[in-house]
This record gives sequence, C-alpha cells and structure tokens, in this order.
Amino acid sequence: MEKSNLTMLTDFYEITMANGYFCTDMADNIACFDMFFRRIPDDGGYAIMAGLEQVIEYLENLEFTDEDIEYLRKQKMFSEDFLKYLSEFKFTCDVWAIPEGTPIFPGEPILTVRGPVMQAQFVETMILLIVNHQSLIATKASRIVRAAAGRPVMEFGTRRAHGTAAAVYGARAAYIGGCAGTACTISDRDFGIPALGTMAHSWVQMYDDEYEAFKKYAEIYPTNCVLLVDTYNVLKSGVPTAIRVFKEMKPEKMGIRIDSGDITYLTKQARKMLDEAGLEDCSIVISNSLDEYLIRDVIQEGACIDSFGVGERLITAKSEPVFGGVYKLSALEKDGKLIPKIKISENVEKITNPGFKTVYRLFDRDSNRALADVIVLDGETIPEDGEYEIFDPNAVWKRKKITNFYAKNLRQQIFKEGKCIYKSPSIDEIKDYCRQQLDAMWDEMKRFENPQNYYVDLSYDLWKLKHDMIAASEK
Amino acid sequence: MEKSNLTMLTDFYEITMANGYFCTDMADNIACFDMFFRRIPDDGGYAIMAGLEQVIEYLENLEFTDEDIEYLRKQKMFSEDFLKYLSEFKFTCDVWAIPEGTPIFPGEPILTVRGPVMQAQFVETMILLIVNHQSLIATKASRIVRAAAGRPVMEFGTRRAHGTAAAVYGARAAYIGGCAGTACTISDRDFGIPALGTMAHSWVQMYDDEYEAFKKYAEIYPTNCVLLVDTYNVLKSGVPTAIRVFKEMKPEKMGIRIDSGDITYLTKQARKMLDEAGLEDCSIVISNSLDEYLIRDVIQEGACIDSFGVGERLITAKSEPVFGGVYKLSALEKDGKLIPKIKISENVEKITNPGFKTVYRLFDRDSNRALADVIVLDGETIPEDGEYEIFDPNAVWKRKKITNFYAKNLRQQIFKEGKCIYKSPSIDEIKDYCRQQLDAMWDEMKRFENPQNYYVDLSYDLWKLKHDMIAASEK
Repeated sequence: MEKSNLTMLTDFYEITMANGYFCTDMADNIACFDMFFRRIPDDGGYAIMAGLEQVIEYLENLEFTDEDIEYLRKQKMFSEDFLKYLSEFKFTCDVWAIPEGTPIFPGEPILTVRGPVMQAQFVETMILLIVNHQSLIATKASRIVRAAAGRPVMEFGTRRAHGTAAAVYGARAAYIGGCAGTACTISDRDFGIPALGTMAHSWVQMYDDEYEAFKKYAEIYPTNCVLLVDTYNVLKSGVPTAIRVFKEMKPEKMGIRIDSGDITYLTKQARKMLDEAGLEDCSIVISNSLDEYLIRDVIQEGACIDSFGVGERLITAKSEPVFGGVYKLSALEKDGKLIPKIKISENVEKITNPGFKTVYRLFDRDSNRALADVIVLDGETIPEDGEYEIFDPNAVWKRKKITNFYAKNLRQQIFKEGKCIYKSPSIDEIKDYCRQQLDAMWDEMKRFENPQNYYVDLSYDLWKLKHDMIAASEK
Repeated sequence: MEKSNLTMLTDFYEITMANGYFCTDMADNIACFDMFFRRIPDDGGYAIMAGLEQVIEYLENLEFTDEDIEYLRKQKMFSEDFLKYLSEFKFTCDVWAIPEGTPIFPGEPILTVRGPVMQAQFVETMILLIVNHQSLIATKASRIVRAAAGRPVMEFGTRRAHGTAAAVYGARAAYIGGCAGTACTISDRDFGIPALGTMAHSWVQMYDDEYEAFKKYAEIYPTNCVLLVDTYNVLKSGVPTAIRVFKEMKPEKMGIRIDSGDITYLTKQARKMLDEAGLEDCSIVISNSLDEYLIRDVIQEGACIDSFGVGERLITAKSEPVFGGVYKLSALEKDGKLIPKIKISENVEKITNPGFKTVYRLFDRDSNRALADVIVLDGETIPEDGEYEIFDPNAVWKRKKITNFYAKNLRQQIFKEGKCIYKSPSIDEIKDYCRQQLDAMWDEMKRFENPQNYYVDLSYDLWKLKHDMIAASEK
C-alpha cells in the first residue's frame, strides 16, 4: 500500500543538522546510533520487537526527489552545494537489529545504524516512528492474547486507528503479537493476515425484522454464518431468532456476536439457550470495548466466550499509547578507531550505554528458558563452557553465577554498506517465532501487573567503560 | 503523500454486507447513514471537526482494482457477478458534512451519506478512520494551545506517531487545532504547515565540547539560532555557553531549547542569566513530555517560556487516544418516501436520532456568541424573527426561550450524486475559521475539567419522531 517515497517524513532538525555536517565537512564522519527504549508500556514485563520489515523498505527507498529539493530550496536556508549533495544521496550505512517477534527489554540496542553521520542521523525519525508504533501494538496484542487464554483474538480496530498506516501496520503488528486475524481487508490482501467480518447493526436494520435479516444472511453465507444478535434485544429477540434460523438453515459453521451489554451475563444466558436448542457447536464472539483486563475479568467470572474481537483499545494501545524508543549516539570513529560516546543525565536510567554493542540472551540448557540478557561490547563473547557471572549494573553486589547455559546473539546484521543482506521472514514465521520466544520466558514476567523483572545486565567490560566515562565527565 | 488507492482499507464486513445486498437485489436501495460521536475525549467541553479534505480524496479515488478483485476471488465467498459489479463500482452518493475546524458536539450528524446502501455502507470504515483520527488530534491540540495562553505551540511528535499517516495528518490536524507549526517536514512540503527544527543532543555530542558545537551552529544559521542547552548541564554549562556564543556571533534571532529537567526552575534561572547578559530577546523553548495540564501548571508557577514543542502526548492524544465516532443507519427510502430508522438501546445516549437531519447553531445577535445547537429534520427551518424555544431532549421540562438570535446551518453539501461540489478551504483558512468559531464559544465550556455543558437540542418534530419510534418499538 505504502510504496511512496517517505524520505521527507522526517523531523526538520535532521535536515538542519545534515546541512550543518555538510557545511563543516563532517558529513562523512562515521558514527554509531542505537535505538533503545527505557520503559515497557503498561509497566509490563516484556515488549515485542516489530516493524523491521518496514524499516528496511524505508531505507531501501531513501531518495530526495526533485520535488523535495525544490521544497528545501524554497526554505532559503540551504546552499546549492548541499542540495546537490542531497539529490545524489545514497544510503550506505550498516544496520544491525533484533528480529521482529523477539521479546525485548529496556536499555537493549534493538537497532544500530553505523555509517556517515549525516545519513545515520537522518534516518532517526522514521526508524523511531516505525519501530515505536509496531512494537507498541505487538506488545499490547501479546498482553490481550495472553488474557484470552487460548481463545482466538481478532483485531477489530480499523475505524479507530490513528490514520491509514496505523490501521494497516497495526493489524500487522497485532498479528505478530498473537492475534488470529483482523477486520482490515487490505492487511489480508497485502500481508496475508486473515481478514474476516460478518455484519453491522445496519444489516439487521435494513430488513423489516431480525428474522428476515438473519435468514437472508444464512442463505448467502451457508458455510460460516455468524449473526450479530444485539440490534434489538440479545436474549428476548437476537438469540432466539438466531436459533430459529440456525435450525432452519443448518449452516456448516455458526456463531453469534454480541457487541454491547454485560458480557458475562449475556454470554452465560446465550450459551444456555444455544445448548438447550442442541446448538452446542454454535460459537459466541464478543466485541465490546475490550482489553486484557476486561477479558481476564469476564473469563474469571465464567463468561462463555469462544473468541474475541478487540477494537480501539488494541489498535490505539489505549491504556498507554506511547512506545518511547529513542535514538542516541553511541560511538564515533576517528582515524579508524572507535571512540565511545555517552549521554550523561542526572537521571541514572537516562544515561546511555557507550560503544558499539550487541545483546546476548542466556538460556538454561535443561529448560530452554531465558535466564537473562547481557549487553556486551563489540567483539566480546560469552563463554558457554563453565561459569558466567552476571550482576545488576545499578546494584553491583547483586551477583549470580550461571552454569549449564547457552548464549544467543539476539542481533543480526540487516544492511551492509547500504545493501540489505537480511531477508525478512514471512509474517507467519514471525508470529510463530514470537510465540516460541515468549514460551521461553518465565510466566512470572508475563503478569499484567507487577511482573517479575527480567535482568538485562552489562558485561564487565561495558560496565567498566560506562563508569569510567561517567567518572571522567565529572572531573 | 498518500495518493494510493485505499478502497480495500475497509472492514471485511463491509464487503460481506455489500455482497449480501447485491445477492438480495437491495444494493441500490437508498439509505442514509450519519456519522456522529457520543462523548468528547478527556471529558472536554467541545471537539473540533477535522479530516474532511481526506474523506473527499478517499471518496474521489474509490475503485476496485484488478488486484483487489483477484484478492476477493481467492476468498471463495463471492460470485463472479458480484466481482464484476465491484469492478464497475462508481461512487454516486450524496454527502453532507460540517466543515473542518468547526466545534462539534455529541449526537450531531457531523457527516451524512445518502445513496445506494451498498455504497453508503461500504465507505463507513474509512470515513470513521479519517474523521476520528484528525478530530481527535485537532481537539487535543486545541486544548494544549489554549493552555499555552498565547505562546506558540509546535507539534513535535512525529517519532511517536502511530505510523506514517498519523504523523503527517496528525500534524495537519494539530495545525487546524491551533498549533503554530510542526517538526514534520513532509507536512510542510505537502500542506504548507510551517516546519522547523534545530538540533538533537547528538549534534552537541559530535563535537569535543558544547562551545564548539554551538559556535558551528551559529555560524551556519546566523538568522535564527536556537541552541539545545541540556546535553550536559543546563545552568552550569548549556546556558553560559549559549550566552558566550550569542555574544560572539550575534545571530539575528536567538533562542535556547530545554528538553529535560524541571521546567519551572530551569527556565526561571535561564531567563535571569540571559537577561543579566543583556539577551532579553533570547527566547526559551521547552519540549519535554508536555500536555495541557503540565503547560497550565508551569505557567501558573511562573516558568519563563516563550514557546512549546509538544510531542507524544499530542500526536497520540495520550490521555485519551480514541475519538469514538460511529456511523449509523438513519433512514431508508422506499418508493421515493423517506422511512426514518432508529437503533434502540437500553443506554439512553446510545439511541440514535432517526431521519435525515441537519444542525443549526444559534448565535446571540449582540455578542455573536453561540447559544445552543439544534438538530432538525430535513426541511425544517428555525425562524429567526421572534422567539424560539429550545428544550433538553432528555429532560424536557428544562426549557429556554431564545430571542434576538440568528441561526446558521452548520452543514454543507459535499458530494452530489458522486461528484464533489465542495472546495476545501486552505489549511490556513481552516485554522483561522477554527479560532473564530471557538472565540464564539463561552469560556466556561473550554475549561479542561468539568466544563459547562453546551446544549445540543432536538427540534420538537425530531424529538417527537424519535419518541414515537421508541414507543412503537416497545409494543
């Protein structure tokens, strides 16, 4: 859908800085930038990486068109030399990232760009925009799907999405996070995310009565017939009429959808009525302002629900609609030598991790469960034979010796000198990978409230580098 | 930017219903659908209509491509006759709407589509998506701009927007709601919304020290030099260094930006330092997780701020990221006669207003302030000479006689038989119109919390029709 050139979808300061680097002959200085985030939305125990495929598309299509150059010329801020430079712009950076569907944690460099500073800086806005959005929705979807405890969850939020891209890529991210499908047709056409939908209240209102509306629908869709039963009165009219039509028409698969009222009460009554009519196979679908908390509660109350349609609270991540990923300078190269950079802050968690880094996830050899993540400097490895000591970087007396484990580098190289060397998995592969990776995480860190903290530690070398740099800055 | 064909960006049920109407020879039955909303986000006193220009673009570009038809064929749910019908699909409906920038209120038909039911139903998803999103952001922006009490507010949220369209059209909506500009370059190129931006922390970190970074920037941008002063330490380093550079370089316009720390304390101290250095003209820009509440508070605390950059809390409408517009059947035509339709609910506010309607806003002739809105049935007028009695439709004993007023029909016809007959104003005209229309509203309804309720009444004829239909449904 979105093949348009989005080069100009960038914060204006990326352009003023680009011009600045150009004017001072620094444009080709090599710099490394990390994307990372500081807090998991909803104070959850994990987030889900998503959006990398769209980042790749963006980077592969970076190009300043004549129209863009003309627009910039009119700003009367930039020299013709700079505009010419932009018109010949080609992305030549290296990129590393954690693949989509991976559980990710605060502080981890989930994406790193290394290359000429003018380029590596310029792509900040769109990388953040794409990964922040899709990771937000994938994370929220994962929570909601978990609440549904095995019942399918459909993404139904298109009409409340923040614009077209939020609908399309939100459906994609929700699928990665575990949703079974979407109402958004274009996301099925373009990504193969199963789309489905049956009727609105208006379908029922178009007919003189509910019986006629249901019967016509069952005639047209005899293989899969889901009837919306709350246009007039769920228990007095909708369910009895649906039962009558199901018995007369005998569709192959049948279901009722309830979109209003008290879910627990209505589904219990409806289930009873359907069962008494011998329609034990008829499924009950619920779709009324749901989120993980409501779903958990109605299931606990014994509501009889076979699947959920979740709209606005998923597609907008309503309870916390911001994924706060940032993009910070981590190193410069001078004369072929890497010079780590750090951003100091009075707020400890806002101090960045310097240098070019990667992330290892340590798994227990027996249970295959994830034990901790360790951020290491480039070139460091984690010896898997023997003992490895991890420690809390903010409370170094908290130490733990790990044995009988294996370590997996979470990041892969995506671009090499501007050329994509990574093939995105299919959307179903990403979704399966996400489920597998979450299965490797302990349940106590998947709790909705006050989850157990998952450790993201620093290697000793990285920790020492960071603390030496903090100390040096205070002189 | 988004000229792509978005016909398939629709809930799948619009297509199953379309096929249903086609199969039952009802596709060309004439129906009226109203878009309206039930609650103002953040429990505010008013909302701002936005997104109409993009609705027009969408409707003008509606078309099922071969690729779309092929996708639908593969679903094995639709007949070749129906697919042929879709491939020849042309939008032929009439559309009425309240122009962008107008303050709007719950229950008002802000947009109505009248035409063959298959078409009028089909466009539901995208109309809701576009108008819900832009009205959400325009409304939030209006609150934030109001809190800033005359100081310019820039939209700075691109990197936290929910996808590309949310960034671009969010910037558009924020401008309509009163923002002075955006950081989003493409929104300037495509809509003429002033974009600006200066530097990130990484600019400062690229240099050996803050002085060099600032000086280079001032050399390159001598006409408008805004320096980011919180990379190391605002008061010990950032502000003194900025002062030194300003004095040496003497830029035409100068400013400092603070992006972290306590706004009130830092801006008061910075103002004092700047003034003592004779830099009374230097402006102070703040950009750290702001919204209307924080802005109001820091201004009350005496913070010295000249303008605000507002990011994630505006572009996501973080405090309440959902604008709950719905699209409901209001009438059918049979044999050239209009048959009003109503959707009954146990929840009084969920009962729809039947029939084809419009909205009048009544203004006091002396003050030109808006007194109330009245929803009327098609053909009804509001006599301006003499007395007009309005009443609360849910508490009919609350009555008020209005004199010395004039009434303005808020809606305009946008499409006639599928042809657009409305020319969207320029973005600056919409923004100005919004400001004027808000000026005509009493201040007490613009309060952030517990605003005075603005009355949206029904004409006596509409009220009677509605209540007769409710009574009939209960038999």
